[in-house]
Amino acid sequence: MARIDVNCDMGESFGVYDIGTDEEALLELVSSANVACGFHAGDPSVIDRTVSLALRAGVAIGAHPSYYDLRGFGRRAITADPSEVEADVLYQLGAVAAFARAHGGRLAHVKPHGALYNQAATDEALAQAVARAVARFDPNLVFVGLASSPVMRRAAESQGLRFAGEAFADRRYEADGTLVSRREAGALIGGPAEAAAQAVRIARGHAVVARDGSSVALDAATLCLHGDTPGAVANARAVREALDAAGVVVRALAR
Amino acid sequence: MARIDVNCDMGESFGVYDIGTDEEALLELVSSANVACGFHAGDPSVIDRTVSLALRAGVAIGAHPSYYDLRGFGRRAITADPSEVEADVLYQLGAVAAFARAHGGRLAHVKPHGALYNQAATDEALAQAVARAVARFDPNLVFVGLASSPVMRRAAESQGLRFAGEAFADRRYEADGTLVSRREAGALIGGPAEAAAQAVRIARGHAVVARDGSSVALDAATLCLHGDTPGAVANARAVREALDAAGVVVRALAR
Amino acid sequence: MARIDVNCDMGESFGVYDIGTDEEALLELVSSANVACGFHAGDPSVIDRTVSLALRAGVAIGAHPSYYDLRGFGRRAITADPSEVEADVLYQLGAVAAFARAHGGRLAHVKPHGALYNQAATDEALAQAVARAVARFDPNLVFVGLASSPVMRRAAESQGLRFAGEAFADRRYEADGTLVSRREAGALIGGPAEAAAQAVRIARGHAVVARDGSSVALDAATLCLHGDTPGAVANARAVREALDAAGVVVRALAR
Amino acid sequence: MARIDVNCDMGESFGVYDIGTDEEALLELVSSANVACGFHAGDPSVIDRTVSLALRAGVAIGAHPSYYDLRGFGRRAITADPSEVEADVLYQLGAVAAFARAHGGRLAHVKPHGALYNQAATDEALAQAVARAVARFDPNLVFVGLASSPVMRRAAESQGLRFAGEAFADRRYEADGTLVSRREAGALIGGPAEAAAQAVRIARGHAVVARDGSSVALDAATLCLHGDTPGAVANARAVREALDAAGVVVRALAR
Repeated sequence: MARIDVNCDMGESFGVYDIGTDEEALLELVSSANVACGFHAGDPSVIDRTVSLALRAGVAIGAHPSYYDLRGFGRRAITADPSEVEADVLYQLGAVAAFARAHGGRLAHVKPHGALYNQAATDEALAQAVARAVARFDPNLVFVGLASSPVMRRAAESQGLRFAGEAFADRRYEADGTLVSRREAGALIGGPAEAAAQAVRIARGHAVVARDGSSVALDAATLCLHGDTPGAVANARAVREALDAAGVVVRALAR
Repeated sequence: MARIDVNCDMGESFGVYDIGTDEEALLELVSSANVACGFHAGDPSVIDRTVSLALRAGVAIGAHPSYYDLRGFGRRAITADPSEVEADVLYQLGAVAAFARAHGGRLAHVKPHGALYNQAATDEALAQAVARAVARFDPNLVFVGLASSPVMRRAAESQGLRFAGEAFADRRYEADGTLVSRREAGALIGGPAEAAAQAVRIARGHAVVARDGSSVALDAATLCLHGDTPGAVANARAVREALDAAGVVVRALAR
Repeated sequence: MARIDVNCDMGESFGVYDIGTDEEALLELVSSANVACGFHAGDPSVIDRTVSLALRAGVAIGAHPSYYDLRGFGRRAITADPSEVEADVLYQLGAVAAFARAHGGRLAHVKPHGALYNQAATDEALAQAVARAVARFDPNLVFVGLASSPVMRRAAESQGLRFAGEAFADRRYEADGTLVSRREAGALIGGPAEAAAQAVRIARGHAVVARDGSSVALDAATLCLHGDTPGAVANARAVREALDAAGVVVRALAR
Repeated sequence: MARIDVNCDMGESFGVYDIGTDEEALLELVSSANVACGFHAGDPSVIDRTVSLALRAGVAIGAHPSYYDLRGFGRRAITADPSEVEADVLYQLGAVAAFARAHGGRLAHVKPHGALYNQAATDEALAQAVARAVARFDPNLVFVGLASSPVMRRAAESQGLRFAGEAFADRRYEADGTLVSRREAGALIGGPAEAAAQAVRIARGHAVVARDGSSVALDAATLCLHGDTPGAVANARAVREALDAAGVVVRALAR
């Protein structure tokens, strides 16, 4: 029986700035929530609220650490020293884990955010720095990273961590398993139906159709749904219903 | 046999800004280190280094949470909502605890910093917010606060926490047990010898001489040494040697 | 003929966080825009865009300086040293003025934001610090402050600045000309019609009806419209139409 | 008669963090001060003090804008959008210029800091963004950049700005006029005597000896002295005395 985790980024409001107003609706559709840690988004009050909501919804909590870059929402590449990145990630894991603990839960996984995710997918030293921080904090945490990144997978496994490859229902792939850049046409998959179909293929371990028409296999343990795009909830609901209809079990990651 | 904890604020460097270069010398003289959490001072790399040094020196680690105010070093009073303060403190406890854990240690106590300490000494709602954060994170943590503050003591105890009253070797007291304001002459005690004598009186549970000549009893479980003043190490050494010579056992706080 | 300025706070988005989407609509209704300077809201790109829009709409540009407090949107009182506040305000004036200049315009007025506004309305030293910063930067700038604050008025005038008293169409007043606190019922005026009526009374120099039913005269040169409340544009339009219908000339402040 | 400007970075303290305590001594040796603008270092109070000191010493004031990166002191490369960089630079120019104006002076030049300097030396779009910000603010400002960077020179000149090539007395050059990376041995020139000799050669327009022994000509209008290294003042004094002894006129840049 096919099984997959479904994750979504959450807790991205800051101070008076409110985004992600549909988080309660999304929490009914996903099995894991990646909680912003205050470096690219989120603040302690937002983390408190988000963690509380997720636990009440029975959704597994993960930390979503980032470069310290509120202005750029963590999307700007920064040439930081790996030891600095390691300390930054450890700091963020601890901060979010404190709220999980305060609400009677625990941290289940870690997924780097934005530029840190993208850079760690190809930069060995950076991926190792993130993995070291995770392993130092709690070796039972699952490291979520790009399914097609051997760099991330190796980094996680060399630290004794479980690696969970992540795939995207609504992004189109290149033949080598990387994502079509958002700067190019065709980066995003058209509508809910097509995204749902790709989600089911991924969950079943079937290959997806790459941009050039070829087939590409993704070794994915978790599917990412986007919460911050127009129509996010409708899209997420379509994906989730398709997974349910196909008999795919949606369940949080576990060591 | 008299016994007391000796604590010092540490980890207050930030990025390229280096202060507290005498931390290794101070660590040989104290039993507890209050580690800045990144809100008024410190950054993840500094916390990493400070926690590692403290553990290697056999010094107990505490979190030193503050208002978010790097510019003002946490010394500016801010009228923050108690629920916001609670979340801020929880965030900081988790962040520093992550480094303690990563280095094989654990957090032992929490001491609010600067304006948060001063405001919580008299503001019931604020003191409760800090105590709630501490208790939610770990009820075994000791809450360090102003020895003469019934507000802080009550807040800690109402949350089931051990309260450890803090006294100062090098600060002069008013007759009511509050500190002479730094803005007034005579706030600081003259030299190492006088500070050492006051330290021994406090450790033995004897009254100290207040500014007006009266005697004031301080129910103190921990003595604060300042690390950021000129001659800090010499001062600290004088205090520690006087405590040792008087047969006072210097030992970290414990639940 | 009655004449008044109508001002609105603007440029309060930050990074990916978008608020104030109705700014273009509001710019057609006001004569002055108070542009957030990056301390409580706004960032350089937002300031650039806001200043450009305001100038294109023929709206006068003012700086809206604040305490450095992005997390609290500048609404939290901070006990900052007046000389520090003076430097902070000067910094923010220069920053916003640079964009006015770059777009071929100039800064016309300064209105402190949030907690800085509220504190300066009663704290002489703080009001003087703000006024000194304004006068040092450009003595032709108009200082906008609470109409019923003699403290602010005196501070401005003692620095040789023109003071423009500000009144609120949609806030209810106490008998002494201060605003009913937002924490109390009846702080906000019910609907567009009542706000519009109060606006016209203020513009004509007539007294408004205070909470206790008494009459209170406000020496106001500018009316503040809120842009961040639900129905802000509808409210602003009602006020503006009432002013126009009453023959009140809406015109920006000038030295 | 040979003539050159001598510049030094200043105003890099922040809050309680004090660096650059020798600034008054350095101000007697240089003709231009590059004032940190609060993005990588400095805060409004520090800028106020630094600008005041520089003007009193008769030293020309320049802005030293940076990426927003206090933690990394502006030394970390960030992949920011050029339009964002343009707005950031404009903001910083305005902020520092406000203090120059408040003290009765004016801004004379702009020199990007750290990673922004290094990236703009080779990245055309970035160099253009900086130059556009400078030109929009004040076309009489001099753009200070790496002497051997045609990218920066072109960017400045295409915006109608005067470009002033910068050379370093205490850094060794590669044969192509770039600096030997600080990560390599031999990046820094040994002692004051050798630095002074290189300074005189540069001021006279003579070639300097590159790392490989070849001669390299630097079209430099300004010499940078470092203020934050041990022995900075002694080094600066040696350079200045050598320039004076060689009859080189040290004078600030001017349009």
